[in-house]
Amino acid sequence: MKKIEHIGIAVKDLAKASKTYQTLLNTEAYKEEQVESEGVSTLFFRTGESKIELLSATHSNSPIAKFIEKRGEGIHHIAFAVDNIETEIKRLQAEGFQLLNQKPKTGADNKLIAFLHPKSSNGVLVELCQEKPK
Amino acid sequence: MKKIEHIGIAVKDLAKASKTYQTLLNTEAYKEEQVESEGVSTLFFRTGESKIELLSATHSNSPIAKFIEKRGEGIHHIAFAVDNIETEIKRLQAEGFQLLNQKPKTGADNKLIAFLHPKSSNGVLVELCQEKPK
Repeated sequence: MKKIEHIGIAVKDLAKASKTYQTLLNTEAYKEEQVESEGVSTLFFRTGESKIELLSATHSNSPIAKFIEKRGEGIHHIAFAVDNIETEIKRLQAEGFQLLNQKPKTGADNKLIAFLHPKSSNGVLVELCQEKPK
Repeated sequence: MKKIEHIGIAVKDLAKASKTYQTLLNTEAYKEEQVESEGVSTLFFRTGESKIELLSATHSNSPIAKFIEKRGEGIHHIAFAVDNIETEIKRLQAEGFQLLNQKPKTGADNKLIAFLHPKSSNGVLVELCQEKPK
């Protein structure tokens, strides 16, 4: 893993949380994006070489809606940047980690992504994240 | 906030989790430290400019023991690096954030730290973190 690419935080009200994190981080959001396939609206802030991604549900079946219903607002996942996501998926599978995605899929912010099952990593939902080749 | 200083992950068995994260992050832990005042054993891994801090309880009254009892293993807090923690505490208080520590206290890894109440930041326990002056 090269670095923490971003931390995903599940929130109920994206506009309200945006103001909170703008004040907390002392910087403005630089990007807003809907990922329809995931049922989420996202908002990104930069902090050092990493990002904070606020996530809100676009419908009641969204994984984010379910997460908030079960656990309340809070940290949803950590994403690590990798150079080659297919290689990294194979490496982790060989090491016994359970992948939620066997093949990379398209995520927000022009990325190829894959998730590990939280039971493989002490309750932490881990995302692998590779910049999409142009 | 300058950057993500570290992410704290609450685990039951530090030795077992250490092996998992060594494999996941593909790097060895560089530091182990007990913080008696907090009732925690900690283990640090580097990832880019940030760190992953595994936390286990040293006794049953430890905040980490209570966290795991209530929510299970998982991400416990995000720590942001700041240049001057006292200035940052004052700025955030003036903005209406609730601080759990009005004055910085000594944390692991030679840091001055202060926590924000999770209700101020959408369920996220935020730590401010300043390198201790020598």
